[in-house]
Amino acid sequence: MTDFYQEITPGGYGIAIKRKETLFSEQSPFQKVEIFESDSTLGRVLTLDDLMMTTEGDEYHYHEMIAHIPMMHHKAPKTVLVIGGGDGGTVREVLKHDTVEKVVLCEIDGMVIDACKKYLPTISCELDNPKCEILVQDAIEYIKDKENMFDIVLIDSTDPMGPGEGLFTEAFYTNVKRSLKPGGIVCAQSESPFAQSDAVKKMYMLLKKVFPICATFTSNIPTYPGGYWAWAFCSETVEPLSYWDERRGNAITKTCKIYNKEYHDARFALPNYLKELL
Amino acid sequence: MTDFYQEITPGGYGIAIKRKETLFSEQSPFQKVEIFESDSTLGRVLTLDDLMMTTEGDEYHYHEMIAHIPMMHHKAPKTVLVIGGGDGGTVREVLKHDTVEKVVLCEIDGMVIDACKKYLPTISCELDNPKCEILVQDAIEYIKDKENMFDIVLIDSTDPMGPGEGLFTEAFYTNVKRSLKPGGIVCAQSESPFAQSDAVKKMYMLLKKVFPICATFTSNIPTYPGGYWAWAFCSETVEPLSYWDERRGNAITKTCKIYNKEYHDARFALPNYLKELL
Repeated sequence: MTDFYQEITPGGYGIAIKRKETLFSEQSPFQKVEIFESDSTLGRVLTLDDLMMTTEGDEYHYHEMIAHIPMMHHKAPKTVLVIGGGDGGTVREVLKHDTVEKVVLCEIDGMVIDACKKYLPTISCELDNPKCEILVQDAIEYIKDKENMFDIVLIDSTDPMGPGEGLFTEAFYTNVKRSLKPGGIVCAQSESPFAQSDAVKKMYMLLKKVFPICATFTSNIPTYPGGYWAWAFCSETVEPLSYWDERRGNAITKTCKIYNKEYHDARFALPNYLKELL
Repeated sequence: MTDFYQEITPGGYGIAIKRKETLFSEQSPFQKVEIFESDSTLGRVLTLDDLMMTTEGDEYHYHEMIAHIPMMHHKAPKTVLVIGGGDGGTVREVLKHDTVEKVVLCEIDGMVIDACKKYLPTISCELDNPKCEILVQDAIEYIKDKENMFDIVLIDSTDPMGPGEGLFTEAFYTNVKRSLKPGGIVCAQSESPFAQSDAVKKMYMLLKKVFPICATFTSNIPTYPGGYWAWAFCSETVEPLSYWDERRGNAITKTCKIYNKEYHDARFALPNYLKELL
């Protein structure tokens, strides 16, 4: 009988992937970390507490969006903070911007980093880049005393339960805002508009209290519930689609499977049901 | 033990939906027609030969796109042909355009129409509209001698296997082209760019032989493989995004869960991997 990994949302539907063999499965102090080899074109799959995080076959759908959409709104992003994102995919995309001098990865769970370095090399490949500083630390603590440090903060977190829970609070986002340099931009994964509309609404109510500019963009993620994902774009001064650097943008497009200028411009066009929700 | 409906693509992954009870399951001369009540927010589910066709909970994602994207490119669509689409969802959306005088539904399998009328009333609700003419007939035969008849032809077919197979040929599309009035537009569902890239490529190679203008648009379909779907936009004279009627567009937007002007404009922006494929 075929062995399937299934992730079923509270809505009663979800995704199924043929499972071949477990490569890594351990309980960290924070969560169950698992990487399995699928019997599918998706390749290897990372799950945390049995929830889908990423797959070798579709990870670029997520990582290109969370990195390039906000970063291409900044004239010259030099310092970037990635919160969560221990698989390294977001760091890999951030480092495609030749303006970047330093990217700090603040991941609470060192086991995620170690397992991804070993079993997901195409995703974690830039974690050893000298421009990348890795902090195995709770981002809630880390961000408390940071001021005027980052051009871009990317919140590549798990869902708002488990270790990611404290990342979905007003206090946390207020600290994130303080850590930004002038012209800074925050981007945070904000769940599935179709499958988790309550979570999406709650998060934006909170973000709007902290940031004067708070927009939403969306894109397709084949292995996430509903195949459709939202990210929050927050800033004190930068409006969506107010800037795009042709030189840097064209160079990045050549390295991407999804990202290009037209795709970038189209991301802030939302379906009616999501506009109403926000 | 929970009973799941699973549709797994040849790629080894797919969707899973909690199943509650079977409402209808019969073999027609063409295919196995089944409607089940799911134990999920998706409500009732229609499958043909065990392949997902539509669900009450997400059907508008598909039907709004196949109807409104092409129809809003036409100045005053009066006569529309829907091929396949026996569930009635496309007809329902077509009839939101107050310019429409007649929509012909040409569906090979009368059992699909009857079952959907009985079990999927929110989708099939306009099949009894006096402007809708239903032909239970093979569209390949029907279209052979039609000339200068339709402003819009929508090909709302199953996948290119089983009864839908003959709808994926050059001969068929040549006949469809002949059936168009000047300024006419054809829109055809064209599979999943992520999960079925070979099928997508094959179809566009074929369409480009027949139509001088052949573009692709995409949108999210939560219950289709990869959560992402493509449609072909074909015409002899009408370019993508060359026309949009504000009066009609705004009226339709008010009735839709997805469709609006910005969303419309964003649909032809494709990811790099799909641009390369086509």
